[in-house]
Amino acid sequence: MIRLTRRYRFSSAHRLHAAQLSDSENRDVYGKCNNPFGHGHNYTVEVSVRGPLDEATGLVVDLQALDALVRERVVDAFDHKDLNRQAPEFAATPPTTENLAIVIRDRLLAGWGDTFSAGGTGLERIRIYETKRNIFEVNGKS
Amino acid sequence: MIRLTRRYRFSSAHRLHAAQLSDSENRDVYGKCNNPFGHGHNYTVEVSVRGPLDEATGLVVDLQALDALVRERVVDAFDHKDLNRQAPEFAATPPTTENLAIVIRDRLLAGWGDTFSAGGTGLERIRIYETKRNIFEVNGKS
Amino acid sequence: MIRLTRRYRFSSAHRLHAAQLSDSENRDVYGKCNNPFGHGHNYTVEVSVRGPLDEATGLVVDLQALDALVRERVVDAFDHKDLNRQAPEFAATPPTTENLAIVIRDRLLAGWGDTFSAGGTGLERIRIYETKRNIFEVNGKS
Amino acid sequence: MIRLTRRYRFSSAHRLHAAQLSDSENRDVYGKCNNPFGHGHNYTVEVSVRGPLDEATGLVVDLQALDALVRERVVDAFDHKDLNRQAPEFAATPPTTENLAIVIRDRLLAGWGDTFSAGGTGLERIRIYETKRNIFEVNGKS
Amino acid sequence: MIRLTRRYRFSSAHRLHAAQLSDSENRDVYGKCNNPFGHGHNYTVEVSVRGPLDEATGLVVDLQALDALVRERVVDAFDHKDLNRQAPEFAATPPTTENLAIVIRDRLLAGWGDTFSAGGTGLERIRIYETKRNIFEVNGKS
Amino acid sequence: MIRLTRRYRFSSAHRLHAAQLSDSENRDVYGKCNNPFGHGHNYTVEVSVRGPLDEATGLVVDLQALDALVRERVVDAFDHKDLNRQAPEFAATPPTTENLAIVIRDRLLAGWGDTFSAGGTGLERIRIYETKRNIFEVNGKS
Repeated sequence: MIRLTRRYRFSSAHRLHAAQLSDSENRDVYGKCNNPFGHGHNYTVEVSVRGPLDEATGLVVDLQALDALVRERVVDAFDHKDLNRQAPEFAATPPTTENLAIVIRDRLLAGWGDTFSAGGTGLERIRIYETKRNIFEVNGKS
Repeated sequence: MIRLTRRYRFSSAHRLHAAQLSDSENRDVYGKCNNPFGHGHNYTVEVSVRGPLDEATGLVVDLQALDALVRERVVDAFDHKDLNRQAPEFAATPPTTENLAIVIRDRLLAGWGDTFSAGGTGLERIRIYETKRNIFEVNGKS
Repeated sequence: MIRLTRRYRFSSAHRLHAAQLSDSENRDVYGKCNNPFGHGHNYTVEVSVRGPLDEATGLVVDLQALDALVRERVVDAFDHKDLNRQAPEFAATPPTTENLAIVIRDRLLAGWGDTFSAGGTGLERIRIYETKRNIFEVNGKS
Repeated sequence: MIRLTRRYRFSSAHRLHAAQLSDSENRDVYGKCNNPFGHGHNYTVEVSVRGPLDEATGLVVDLQALDALVRERVVDAFDHKDLNRQAPEFAATPPTTENLAIVIRDRLLAGWGDTFSAGGTGLERIRIYETKRNIFEVNGKS
Repeated sequence: MIRLTRRYRFSSAHRLHAAQLSDSENRDVYGKCNNPFGHGHNYTVEVSVRGPLDEATGLVVDLQALDALVRERVVDAFDHKDLNRQAPEFAATPPTTENLAIVIRDRLLAGWGDTFSAGGTGLERIRIYETKRNIFEVNGKS
Repeated sequence: MIRLTRRYRFSSAHRLHAAQLSDSENRDVYGKCNNPFGHGHNYTVEVSVRGPLDEATGLVVDLQALDALVRERVVDAFDHKDLNRQAPEFAATPPTTENLAIVIRDRLLAGWGDTFSAGGTGLERIRIYETKRNIFEVNGKS
């Protein structure tokens, strides 16, 4: 088994605010991330895929297919967008980077079977760098 | 003469839209940066200062004073803010990173004389990394 | 389960010298790191925490609490210090980065229960970059 | 148990071409990497070693021995070489970075027993950065 | 005046060999870079452009036009190519990174007038990272 | 004219303390860098050299000669050393990174004429990264 990790980048705006909390609680929990006008980040996403080596080609994954999947389902959906107002998953859920990691994982898994044949390559891990100091990870399986 | 460069970071949202252009022209000029809901970036700012060495201390600049100046006039003003709606300079001017570099330079120059004595350390250059691929610079003097 | 990794930095001096070895053996084992006057490093420490997502806030860990714990027990203890002479753990133990990783893990575990409630977030891993080429890791549980 | 990761670099040329595929299939599978004149990369290799701590020295591995092993069996074999024509493993196998990771792992394992005593330090993982965006990993055991 | 620096990447193979020198002199001058089978690098190129700010748009340069110019004249010409055999400038000239910097500068200047209007944006500097340790620069004007 | 920048690294301990200042003034000026037991850094030094291109070889500088000069006069003198106690220039002068930049420049200039022929390659600039946030530069000529 071999693992491939490929990096993607996108830039988005977001505001952290939980509907279930009061305004005062929101300020306590999120600090300046609760700024009502939002703020933004350059996100770096690492998509890790694992699978057996194709003996003839010496490749573990079709990079063009992976790029197409990530671009269509993730980068085009979030790049230069306001996550709160333009991504349906965050209409009622705070767009923390934790939730963003889960959403990216679920979006990729939803299209995985159409892109990669059964029994072959699997999604191992999603890692997001919110900034150079804050990094979030979820495993590939729900 | 010695030059010191110190790095700062902040995260902001912005939308690129020029009042003097039509909607169609705005989309042509700014592309996806014209998205009406805005997007965001992690900006890295390098502030370069030049000056003579203080022979007794072996220092070119009082770092605590520089940090206070940059924090008060730049980082606190822009970090976790929406540049279009929360920074007065961008009420009518598009918050391109070019304009952001000029605004940061002018904000620092406005407070320079109160922080550093005349004839000593000068502001040499402002450099901003909008992303890892796009870097903008202005000289310290208007 | 989600993992958060947060980066911290500190700069320290140290000298590698094992009390159980002769001077000649120390020079053989540690090379120039055995220099009697010591030398120093900028250490980068990655603290990885795992836990369930808080559904209301979308957060996996209270970052302010984590920062306070790491600052009080690790950064303040080691930053701009001489590890051999100013950190009690290294009075008789050589301050290799391996041992430093273990000490940081144990210092965080000692304060963990007061910071994070039982059953929730756990310490997954400590990783230290001694230089860009040498990286050390220990798991969170002793 | 402690893990040490140490980074090495080398620069090589390669051409991706599978003997089992037709010329047209090769162009489809490898794209511009199938260019008959080859191209090249700066590879960064991370060698991760795990083992118990030597209590006297506080070290997990003899770095000089590890460096000698990696230099003799990997860096000297591949640095400033054409992988297709100068590395025997790639005479009939396409030098994808996936295969390169496996070859490096096997070369290190072949010399491991002569360098490190039984029961002690083990090879945990090989990771190669082909570029900043493409990263490949294999576990240490075949 | 504002300066914009934009980063591009390509991977190429090359062999250093000067026609005017004997084989023995070539080995002395270029060391392992004279390996007859060649080797390769991931090059990072920074293109720095200077110009006045467009007051209406707040932009210093049309990034799409710059990207098109660099892609057509530089990246497409060198990426996944063997510089000695596939770039006409290096048919008789050794493809050192020094010469590569000059060739890139001259290729961009040759197309500059068709892309950017007279009196406006100028090419300030080309910088190439051959590896993380070796960086080469030429000014924009011949 | 072409410029080459080459990076070197060394790790040292130092303590900032000015003989001309009182203990209290030293604590005010240097803060925690005045810690009597010292602390340390991984320094990255960039040595920038400019000169004409050698037409036959396509090289601007003999890298082996430059490496030998920097290793003998800088890296060997400072790596894994205590700057205050093991570098003669800092016996009475505080080893700030500003002063370190000047000392490195002067050490290289002292050996320059024996390494590089007159009229040819010149030392353009010394840049030191004390940490990722603090960078110091001096020009090559005194």
